[in-house]
Formats: sequence, structure tokens, C-alpha cells
Amino acid sequence: MALDPGVLAELESIVGREHVRHREGEVAPYARDATPLFSSPPDAVVFPARTEEVAAVLRLATAHRVPVVPRGAGSNLCAATVPLQGGILLVLTRMDRVLEISTEELLVRAEPGATTATVAEAAAAQGLLFAPDPGSRTVSTVGGNVATCAGGLRGLKYGVTRNYVLGLEVVLPTGEVIRTGGRLWKDVAGYDLTRLLTGSEGTLGVITEVTLALLPMPATASTGVAYFSSLADAGRAVTQVLAHGVVPATLEFLDHTCIGAVEDYARLGLRTDAGALLLFGDDGEPDAVERNLTRMGELCADEGALEVTVAKEVAQSEALLAARRCSLPALSRLDTLTVLEDVTVPRPRLAEMVDRIEAVAARHDLVIGTFGHAGDGNLHPTAVIDARDPAAADRTHAAFAEIFAAALELDGTITGEHGVGAAKLPYLRDRLGDDQMALLARIKTAFDPAGILNPGKTGS
Amino acid sequence: MALDPGVLAELESIVGREHVRHREGEVAPYARDATPLFSSPPDAVVFPARTEEVAAVLRLATAHRVPVVPRGAGSNLCAATVPLQGGILLVLTRMDRVLEISTEELLVRAEPGATTATVAEAAAAQGLLFAPDPGSRTVSTVGGNVATCAGGLRGLKYGVTRNYVLGLEVVLPTGEVIRTGGRLWKDVAGYDLTRLLTGSEGTLGVITEVTLALLPMPATASTGVAYFSSLADAGRAVTQVLAHGVVPATLEFLDHTCIGAVEDYARLGLRTDAGALLLFGDDGEPDAVERNLTRMGELCADEGALEVTVAKEVAQSEALLAARRCSLPALSRLDTLTVLEDVTVPRPRLAEMVDRIEAVAARHDLVIGTFGHAGDGNLHPTAVIDARDPAAADRTHAAFAEIFAAALELDGTITGEHGVGAAKLPYLRDRLGDDQMALLARIKTAFDPAGILNPGKTGS
Repeated sequence: MALDPGVLAELESIVGREHVRHREGEVAPYARDATPLFSSPPDAVVFPARTEEVAAVLRLATAHRVPVVPRGAGSNLCAATVPLQGGILLVLTRMDRVLEISTEELLVRAEPGATTATVAEAAAAQGLLFAPDPGSRTVSTVGGNVATCAGGLRGLKYGVTRNYVLGLEVVLPTGEVIRTGGRLWKDVAGYDLTRLLTGSEGTLGVITEVTLALLPMPATASTGVAYFSSLADAGRAVTQVLAHGVVPATLEFLDHTCIGAVEDYARLGLRTDAGALLLFGDDGEPDAVERNLTRMGELCADEGALEVTVAKEVAQSEALLAARRCSLPALSRLDTLTVLEDVTVPRPRLAEMVDRIEAVAARHDLVIGTFGHAGDGNLHPTAVIDARDPAAADRTHAAFAEIFAAALELDGTITGEHGVGAAKLPYLRDRLGDDQMALLARIKTAFDPAGILNPGKTGS
Repeated sequence: MALDPGVLAELESIVGREHVRHREGEVAPYARDATPLFSSPPDAVVFPARTEEVAAVLRLATAHRVPVVPRGAGSNLCAATVPLQGGILLVLTRMDRVLEISTEELLVRAEPGATTATVAEAAAAQGLLFAPDPGSRTVSTVGGNVATCAGGLRGLKYGVTRNYVLGLEVVLPTGEVIRTGGRLWKDVAGYDLTRLLTGSEGTLGVITEVTLALLPMPATASTGVAYFSSLADAGRAVTQVLAHGVVPATLEFLDHTCIGAVEDYARLGLRTDAGALLLFGDDGEPDAVERNLTRMGELCADEGALEVTVAKEVAQSEALLAARRCSLPALSRLDTLTVLEDVTVPRPRLAEMVDRIEAVAARHDLVIGTFGHAGDGNLHPTAVIDARDPAAADRTHAAFAEIFAAALELDGTITGEHGVGAAKLPYLRDRLGDDQMALLARIKTAFDPAGILNPGKTGS
């Protein structure tokens, strides 16, 4: 279904002809985001430069009932920005300015298309930390981070994106521009639209400016590693760490499959005989960091760690973190298609969940490696299959359906930080129930009466 | 307007006759909450004991279009629980059990009527901290804390109630029971109803269970005090503290009027010649606390503090905090009616806001003392007037209207932590604008199509 020529002409007059793409070859690259197995081209790709242009596009789209899918870098992993019903893909990467960093107010104001890394580096240059740390930070945009409520490696100590959003400028699907929140740490005037829009995945409004809280940069950071025979042992060590009053910046795990893949890939000298690897780290004042690292190392040893090493210097610390950071590329090398998933369970049930994943993988004859955030109970089971084998893709879908069901059985959720998008929507009802699904649809209508914004996703 | 006798009989059959009050003398004490100058009696006061009873009451109310106002302790300061249109006051204080404390998962699950202090003490008994610390904590309920997104003295370092709500059980006005969130630190499945309901002041649903995050109890805490000639000097000291990488647990201020009133009341030996008093404090490991206290003291001295004292022992620390905690009772003694307000401005504009408040007080011939949370930019201007003088009440209303307008002019908000309720609703449009007000009303309708829940408040 092509766009009405009149609509196309209006789009061109709003953003300028050079900022609209609509020929088949031009729109084809925008059919996908970072999610495998989902593809659907838009009818037009539109690159606005200002809030007023976004508002004009949305008014036009509502008037003509044309779907609009807002998108930043397209680095999301749940097909949240795949234009399932065609229409307009509204790409916000031209709006990429960091507008302000206030060292006095500890905040940054930016346009949505600024990358996470750009914002974090601009803050760091002023001695400030942007705490959310999603894996995609070098390419992901802050607008996308807010739209997906992105998580990352520092969630336990620092929380997720939601905890840092102070204010938003948002264009409603009907074209009104609203400003929620502001520059304030405390503000309870009206419903918390700031948080409702955070994580709404482009279904309720288009974010055109973000105001995000920053923190003083920690003076130092350090990392240690512990190997265990099993993830159950590692899980007990995590529980002991928290029970001893330490809420560390880093508590990441790799299962046996991941350890092997990473060692094969990066030759870091990891112990491939171990059943699980636990990275633990903290940041802050040097004496506190040293004390916490020592304490965590001792607690790991008490829980039967095969080996514990605390980094003596920054370079060693970086090398250890590299083991976690390269889990995904390392697993990817095992075959031609990588399906990275994202479930969360209550922290004490982490080992049980990994056991379930292993059983599912065996049942479906799949290689699934699992790594993730042990402190949050947030796991990333990752299947690696032959892209040319449709049967393997089917087995992967079936396996993940069972993994989501297992997470729910263990009081967990179907997505901890990646989002619902199109990929998880079939499982959302199992998580929320009929009454809550109906309520989400009514909320969606309150924002988007014509249903033009990111249709076929949450709220549709 | 009395309740239909059939509805009354049904209410009695749902919760038991002894848990419904409807005679004039019985309902009169429930006409008010802790907010002065607002009063309107309910037709019936109903005390449910279980979620199913709450659901049955709401189904009945929706069917018969009877207003329902949910209430905990009624300690809110914005007339959020005054039943403006009569109907049913649904008091949740019988549902007051602490259901679970998990030291492994760092969370507490409780019924809404449990008091904040009860929950905090149950957590403390297990070595855990419930971080939100509203002034009303000994009487306020956790359900009310969530419904108002209560703040408190530790907001800068620890955030507000919103940051600790992991999951809710909520009864919708139409009677469906939904569970949002759960026991998870990371969960992005669906719109963030947990946060939308937090701070919705009983207009969207009735909270029947809360799951709240806890933290390890800090090993120690300490407090210091600095006197300044002016609030402008104190404000600069606050900026310097944050600029030096310290995010302390406590940064509270009292203006000259408050210092005098507190000293008169409690004889703590405060310097009544000072223009402002700044309390600074931190908690955590002893060495870090000592270092931060010393650093903050030095920074205050650098900014021209008249005098700086860091507590040498716990008792001295407690005495200093008492100065802040008794500000309100101390001010109350100055006359017969106390109107405590709540605005927030960006932190660097704190001194400017206090200047504005002083000018407004002088213009309207009122005594207004201001104290509050310097780290959050959250101020509590407090007018003390003669309760028998209607002209003074009028001048107070006029003065606060000007104070709210001044806060908005300075990029602030009309309420930082107390809420909107009936008291601030006339000013909400100035804060949010027409488009956002219309959106709030549509969201309200998505939850409450019959408009029975807390009518005449936000969303109405």
C-alpha cells in the first residue's frame, strides 16, 4: 500500500523534499531493526529536524489515518520499530543535539536522536555520570532509551532509564506538544506521564526532548571475577553479597556455554571448565570500592568458588568486563543467526531459571547460552542457529515460548529491559491478564484516538 | 444527599454491618483530612478487610454512580481524601498487615493500611531500610504513601516513594483486580501502570497491596549544621557540595523565621541571629560518612558560614535533626491555624524563591516561615494565622496563589511531594496547560468511565 501522493507532497513540504524517502530501494533498509526475523517496509521514511515538524507530520497522519512509527537508531531487540503496517517511519536522528549540561543541577537536556554514548561522554567531560548503561549505548539514542526504558549493567545499584527521566517534551499523535515534568527531583503535579511515556515504545507519543538526571562521577571503579562449578553456587554468592549490605555496581554472570564461546573468541584466559562465571564490581571512593571488592571476593569463596580474582589495576578490570561485553559477539560466531532474549525472575530463582532454559534447549536441540545481570535477576538466553534452516527458526520460537512461560511460572516477566514490541506482544497477555490488557488499550486510545502511532504493538 | 437505603444495605452485606458508619455523628469526623480549610462529610464510611470487599464496593458504586474516596490515615496535606461530593469514604486501615519481608529479595509486601513506620520498623528488624521518609511517617499508611508518591527528607540521595514501588495490586473503579509489576527490579512488559498509579491520589484505582523495595541498612549516619547570614549563601553551599561529588542523605534548611520559632519552642541552642540554617548529613560506611561530613562542613565554611558544627555522637546528631523535625509544630505555636505548603524549584533558584515568598508574605501582611529540602529544591512555606480571622484566610489564599505562580515562573512546580488533591487543583492547569489537562481527563476516563473515584480531584 503506497502513500497517497497528496500526503507525500505534504510530508515533503513539512520537512523538505531531501528529508523524505519513499522509493522502494530507499525504504527497504528501514524494514528492519536489530531484531532478527521481523521485516516490513515503511511507505515513507521521514527525517524531521524540529518539534514543529514532528507535530505537523502527526497531525497529517491522524487526519489521513496513516500509521507512524517513531524510531531512533533502530537498535532495539523486540521489533518495536518495525513498521508492521507500513506508513511513515519517523526517524529522529537529525534531532541529535545535546542542548544543555548543568553541573549545578546535575542534569542533561538533549534531543531524542543524540546517542547514549554522546550524552554520556558530554556528561563525563563535565565530571558527571549518565548512569543507564544499555549494551547498545554506542549506537542507541537517548529518545530510544527512554521509549524502551532501557536497562543495562548497572541496574541494581543505579536503577534503569526510568529513574533518570526528569522531564519530556512529547508530541501527541493528534499533534499537541506537551511538556511533562521538568528540571525537578520532586514533582507530583498531575499523573506521572513522564514515567507512563517512558517504556511506552513509541505507541503513545513521540519524544522530542529529554531532560535526564546525572550523578557525580564515581572516583574509581574495580572488578573481580569468581568461577563456580554451577550457577546455583553463583546465585547463592549473589544472595550473600546483598545480605551483607553490599549493593554493587556490577554483578554479571556467564553460563558454561558463554564462557566457552568468549574464551574461544577473545582468548582472555577464562576457566572453561567452570559451570558459571560471576563478575562483581563496584565504583565510588577508593577505600569503599576496595573494601566491597574484598568482601565480595570472600563471600564468593565462602560459597565454594573454584577461583576468585580481584583486579589489581584498571587494565585488568577492563579485561574482565570485556568478557561480559563480548558475550554476544562471541556467541554469534557459533552460527549464522543469533536470537537474543530477555527475561527477568526474582533474584533467588536465577539458577532455577537457567536450569529451565538448559532443559528447553536440550528438548529442542538448540544451542542456547545465557548471560545477564545476576543482581537484577535479568537473563539473556541467546539461541544461535543456522539462518538457512527454517526448522531451526521454528524450534527457536517454540523454545522461547516455553522460556517465557517458565519465567512467568517463577514470578518473573517476559521482558526485563528489551521491551515488548512486535516480538513479545503474543506473550504480553499471559503476563498481564485480560483486564490489564483491556486497560492498556483504553490508555492507548486516550493518547491516540485514531490508532496511528506504532500500530500492532502494545495497546493495539 | 443520603445514600440510597438499598446501597447502604448492600454495603453492610459486603463488609459487615459493624464496618459501615452512616449516621451524621459517625461520618462528621471523616469530613476532613489533615488539610485546613477543606471539609465535606461522606454519606457513609466503609472499612473493608479484603481485596474482594473493595472490589464489591467499587462494582456497587459504579453501578449506582456513587462517589468513592479511598483513604488511609487521612494525613495528606492537599485535601486529597476529603469527600467533596459525599458518597462512600473507603477507609483502608483494617487492611494493615505486613505480609512478607524478604531479606533475600530486599522487598516488603504489605496491605495498604499498614503505617509507614510499621513497615520501616519491620524492615529495620531484618537489617533493611525502607528509604522513603515522609514527615507523617508515624501515622501515614504505605497505601497513602504510594497514592501520593510521598517524598521526605532523603529524596536527593534515595529518591521518593516512586523509586521503591515494585508492584501493586489495584482494584479498578469498575471492580476488576489487576496486579502491576511484581517482585522484579527490571520489568518493561506493558505500560508502566505501577508508576502511573503511584501519585494518582486515589483517582484511578484503589491500592490493595504494595510490594516495595528495601535497601541494606546503612552502617552509620551523622549530621552537621551550618548557619549562614542569608539563604543565598546556604544555597551556594548546597551547589558546592553537589559539585564536589557528594550526594548526601540530608540537606535541609530553615529560614530565619523557622529558626526563631524552633528555638523558642525546643530550646536547642540555635543561633537565632542567623538568616538561614543548613542541616547536612550522610549515612553509609563510617569512614565515608566522616569524610563527607568533613567535606560538607568545609564547603559551608568556604561559602561564608557563620558557624559550622559536625555532630560528634549520635545524640548530638539526633538533636540537630530534631530542629528540622519540629519546624512545623514550632511554627504552629505562633498562631491558631497553620497552612503548610509545598513547592519545588530548580535547586539553584532556592534562595530566589525564598526571597519571593518573603516579599509575598510582607505584601499580604502574613507570617510565613519556610523550611524544606535544599537538595531537592523542595520548599515548605508555612503561613501561621488566626483561625477566627476570615480576612487572614483570604490573604493566605491570595498569597499562596502568588507563591505558586512564582514557583512556575522559576521553572518549578506547584507541589513537590504533598500532592494536588482539592487544594491545588485550581492551579494544576497553570502548571500543565490545556492539552495535558485534557489528556489527564482522558486517562481518568480510561480507568474510571463512570467517574466515581475521588471526583473533583485530578482528572475530573
